[in-house]
Amino acid sequence: MKKHNESMLIDFYEFTMANGYFDHGYKDQIVYFDLFFRTIPNRGGYAIMAGLESVIDYIENLAFTEEDIDYLRQRDMFSDEFLTYLSTFTFTGDLYAVKEGTIIFPNEPILTVRATAIEAQLIETYLLLAINHQSLIATKASRLKHAAGDRLLIEMGARRAHGVSSANLGARAAYIGGADLTSNTYADRHLKVPANGTMAHSWIQLFDSEIDAFRAYAKTYPTQTTFLVDTYDTLKSGVPNAIKVIKEDLVPKGINKYAIRIDSGDLTYLSKCARRLLDEAGLPECKIVASNALDEYLIKTIIDQGAPIDIFGVGERLITAKSDPVFGGVYKLVAMEENKRIMPKIKISDNPAKITTPHFKKLYRIYDKTTGNAHADLLTVHTETIDESKPLTIFNPEHTWQTTTYTDYTLKSLLIPIFKDGKRVYDVPTINEVRAHCQNELSHLWDEMKRFEHPHKYYVDLSKKLYDSKMRLIKKHHDAIDDKSHQ
Amino acid sequence: MKKHNESMLIDFYEFTMANGYFDHGYKDQIVYFDLFFRTIPNRGGYAIMAGLESVIDYIENLAFTEEDIDYLRQRDMFSDEFLTYLSTFTFTGDLYAVKEGTIIFPNEPILTVRATAIEAQLIETYLLLAINHQSLIATKASRLKHAAGDRLLIEMGARRAHGVSSANLGARAAYIGGADLTSNTYADRHLKVPANGTMAHSWIQLFDSEIDAFRAYAKTYPTQTTFLVDTYDTLKSGVPNAIKVIKEDLVPKGINKYAIRIDSGDLTYLSKCARRLLDEAGLPECKIVASNALDEYLIKTIIDQGAPIDIFGVGERLITAKSDPVFGGVYKLVAMEENKRIMPKIKISDNPAKITTPHFKKLYRIYDKTTGNAHADLLTVHTETIDESKPLTIFNPEHTWQTTTYTDYTLKSLLIPIFKDGKRVYDVPTINEVRAHCQNELSHLWDEMKRFEHPHKYYVDLSKKLYDSKMRLIKKHHDAIDDKSHQ
Repeated sequence: MKKHNESMLIDFYEFTMANGYFDHGYKDQIVYFDLFFRTIPNRGGYAIMAGLESVIDYIENLAFTEEDIDYLRQRDMFSDEFLTYLSTFTFTGDLYAVKEGTIIFPNEPILTVRATAIEAQLIETYLLLAINHQSLIATKASRLKHAAGDRLLIEMGARRAHGVSSANLGARAAYIGGADLTSNTYADRHLKVPANGTMAHSWIQLFDSEIDAFRAYAKTYPTQTTFLVDTYDTLKSGVPNAIKVIKEDLVPKGINKYAIRIDSGDLTYLSKCARRLLDEAGLPECKIVASNALDEYLIKTIIDQGAPIDIFGVGERLITAKSDPVFGGVYKLVAMEENKRIMPKIKISDNPAKITTPHFKKLYRIYDKTTGNAHADLLTVHTETIDESKPLTIFNPEHTWQTTTYTDYTLKSLLIPIFKDGKRVYDVPTINEVRAHCQNELSHLWDEMKRFEHPHKYYVDLSKKLYDSKMRLIKKHHDAIDDKSHQ
Repeated sequence: MKKHNESMLIDFYEFTMANGYFDHGYKDQIVYFDLFFRTIPNRGGYAIMAGLESVIDYIENLAFTEEDIDYLRQRDMFSDEFLTYLSTFTFTGDLYAVKEGTIIFPNEPILTVRATAIEAQLIETYLLLAINHQSLIATKASRLKHAAGDRLLIEMGARRAHGVSSANLGARAAYIGGADLTSNTYADRHLKVPANGTMAHSWIQLFDSEIDAFRAYAKTYPTQTTFLVDTYDTLKSGVPNAIKVIKEDLVPKGINKYAIRIDSGDLTYLSKCARRLLDEAGLPECKIVASNALDEYLIKTIIDQGAPIDIFGVGERLITAKSDPVFGGVYKLVAMEENKRIMPKIKISDNPAKITTPHFKKLYRIYDKTTGNAHADLLTVHTETIDESKPLTIFNPEHTWQTTTYTDYTLKSLLIPIFKDGKRVYDVPTINEVRAHCQNELSHLWDEMKRFEHPHKYYVDLSKKLYDSKMRLIKKHHDAIDDKSHQ
């Protein structure tokens, strides 16, 4: 397999800007970039952070090969000095991030980079791509698992994924968000996501009859199997044949794990009929697996209709996040250092929702001390400290007269140092630790925010100091524009 | 970067089935699988084949490492004989496929595999993933280019892609389908898709003022630039500053390629106002680039409204195919060899649309000899021949009384041999050849099929012999089920 280094997965404008910074004396200019998103996919109430492990891996290994440099040189746009600089490039900055599996909300930095302008710019594309993709899928899986409740959720979308990394890292993100298993062997072997699988229609077709195919499978895998029952006719052929094989062939050998899988037709109707046939045959322990274009809405509906389904297999609608396949993370300059002082920077916009929150910031989550539930998030300027022994009053930055005061609270600082001066200072957790962290996070989130329709809005507020700093910058830029247009 | 071999990107059930085939004497059983899809994304009139180059690359390099085998062994489900077989696995079969860039339709094989059951099964997941992903994006890009007409289309979605391969191979697929440029440097360096880019908002923010930022950029890149004009205020600041810099700094140096880019706000309104300002300033040659959540529907609308936009940059809605992000290709067993005879196989379903068309088949496209336009596609049993000197009558397999007779026609056989006995027998075309092929294909497609709303339906018909074979198999299975349910 031709393997290409991922170093060139960088939007071309990062190179033109980096070369320009070099050209204009900004080679060593320290800047701060925030990575944040503006809206939650599917108008949901929360999102799940994922992709940090990929980011760490990328930053630790990013380097430009001689061939990369040759390629850039023949583009005839970049100075020799810049290309020489790139040839020994390595990330030397700081990076702070929210841990994978953490619940995240719009308009708060989930990752902050402090680095030279060139370094911060060159890592932009990959950082966004990794966090956007994996947070998207973890969030979607979390919604699916919420709909499925105690029932198992299997991610089985590899064949409909958007390429190799969509399948593999998608399986990992789905597991973080709540999927219990994957169909993808790679994710098991390399990423420690448990994989499983039994048979496709082709297995049934290859044998002379459906029952021969079921018998053969049970013979090879006597301890555990799932019979796919819809190749010819679910209720007239598949389920009766499965029952026959389970009763004749498996029970005598002491088998205790078997199931049927329905992959087409009306899943509520067929699962109810199949359940009756299985129960009448004395097989109440036989599980029913359902798959076929499922998503959280359909799972919720068929459970509400009383479908006796034990395990849901979700393919294309999870791995592509079909109902809303974009996680809109952006990466914006929020500050620069001048003579060791941090100067906040802003991007205004014709659209107020696109105005950024400037400055190097801290992100706190405010928890109710009694219930342990999360109340709101608070952004402050990095130098601010909060005395947790005193009441904390926060206000809504869109409607500043709306205030809330907390007395019985604890704070958690969410942006963890990951790199310091280019060195990793963070121990990467195992996937099961990340998944457990996510489950714990969800258990401290109000149910009102897990609704699919019009979930309760969680507030991300600004400290007074940060709010004032933002307003000052907005005014400054507007004054400058107004001055000019009156000239 | 930790690089993992892609050999394990295989759904786990392919391994359980493969080991089962081995166990039940089907190790050398030759089978035929068809890869086809059932519906066109966005209810469009046609799709574009892409992903074949990835498939070829995969098959030529597929092998299982010792560590892969160790992993499978510790799963404690596979026989030693099977694992030994896997350790020297290589694809030895035949593969036929429609060329990349070709227009394709539902329910026709776009790829056919003839191989042992084990080989055919183990390559399933990757084949589907590659074809599904890349055909999805090529099809989407073709729609976008149709909407954009003569205006340039730039793919710029890397940051919102579903992982690395979604970005890279997505850029390639978009180029095949009609995108003119990409923002992704990797796609340029490794896949020969032309990449370009200029500046982000961060460039503007880093300088003391917008005009300083524009001047600096123009100084570094005097021959060609695009000024991003919406950082502070598009019409009051961005466009006037761009005009000033173009007139003061660039024209004297003989620059002849410059543009402004609008990335927020109402693109119709802003582009009209900006166009007026540019024209009044004597810069009619200054192009206008627009980006921001564009898709084919929005592009069509803003062009209809007279927006003077020259270049469209499309990000998330192309790279994720947001409006319909699933290309539903499937891979079904259609025949088996018994004593060198090819026996057709079928999969019935509770849903008639999911019944497969059995047999090893040929796929023909029927062209009008005069106009060169494609009329319909015809599937035949592989042994059938058609005498092009005689009239050809085809019928609709859903409504068999509907017939059409062609007299002035030519036929093109679309399934090309790619591998024969495991050896590649096909010269992989360059990306520009593939792209030109796609453009040529589209020029022979009726306009009625390129509509976004209710496009004309293109027919894929079956030969009488193939139709009869399918009906015979359906009847056989239904009779068997009915017999059983009357017992």
